[in-house]
Amino acid sequence: MDGTEITCVTIVTEYVLESRLVRDLAACGATGWTITEASGQGPRGRRVSEVEGGNIRVETLVSAEVAERIWDKLAAEYFPSYAVAAWSSKVLVARPERYGL
Amino acid sequence: MDGTEITCVTIVTEYVLESRLVRDLAACGATGWTITEASGQGPRGRRVSEVEGGNIRVETLVSAEVAERIWDKLAAEYFPSYAVAAWSSKVLVARPERYGL
Amino acid sequence: MDGTEITCVTIVTEYVLESRLVRDLAACGATGWTITEASGQGPRGRRVSEVEGGNIRVETLVSAEVAERIWDKLAAEYFPSYAVAAWSSKVLVARPERYGL
Repeated sequence: MDGTEITCVTIVTEYVLESRLVRDLAACGATGWTITEASGQGPRGRRVSEVEGGNIRVETLVSAEVAERIWDKLAAEYFPSYAVAAWSSKVLVARPERYGL
Repeated sequence: MDGTEITCVTIVTEYVLESRLVRDLAACGATGWTITEASGQGPRGRRVSEVEGGNIRVETLVSAEVAERIWDKLAAEYFPSYAVAAWSSKVLVARPERYGL
Repeated sequence: MDGTEITCVTIVTEYVLESRLVRDLAACGATGWTITEASGQGPRGRRVSEVEGGNIRVETLVSAEVAERIWDKLAAEYFPSYAVAAWSSKVLVARPERYGL
């Protein structure tokens, strides 16, 4: 596959934050995302899944610039206050124009 | 881990396409796949999750050759007609013979 | 994003193994994990999802050393006896201290 490299940002956080997070992703420039229900445990030892309806796992494919904006948003407004795990990786896509590239 | 590099293809699409997609993956040479229920939004702004039963997120680990065949299939028969997001990345596995390598 | 590279280990296996697997991950040194419900098919052709309550997909972000321990555990006690797919990849995280790095 002759794909174009793009950044995949994955965020796992509390279910109650879904609509706020999605709004923030869109504001940062993301054009799409995939959400799955999740459970789990974070480094603080709290079973987040037992708190307020479980977790969500959100994936979004974005340009490096948008990824940077998402990261800054998470660092400023999510990491200090909520149970959040987030990571990024490079993946290949066809049709990069769909993702603002 | 001394793993073997293999291609992980992830496809997010409409739930109603599950059995067709799985049949196509097998025909392309995939020997296994993992499916999770998903929701989300794509670049066209349509909330696919609200249409006909939500989305599925399908992962399959395959050789580069099989990945190429899957990609051609998606480009020919899925991308033009359906809400589909797809990407690929390199991952490491033990027991590469399970995946046709 | 100026992230730190870390190993993401993904394990797909039978739902009934969840508590045992989570206990083993913690014993290997993992500090958190994300679990989603899954279905699917493996190379042996058995639809694992139809057996005893479906599958789980577990992701954990760990140091290379912990990943190695998890891998040895899977190879010794899971691969020979259960339907298990497992793979690893490199991802970037902020706050690497959360993951024992």
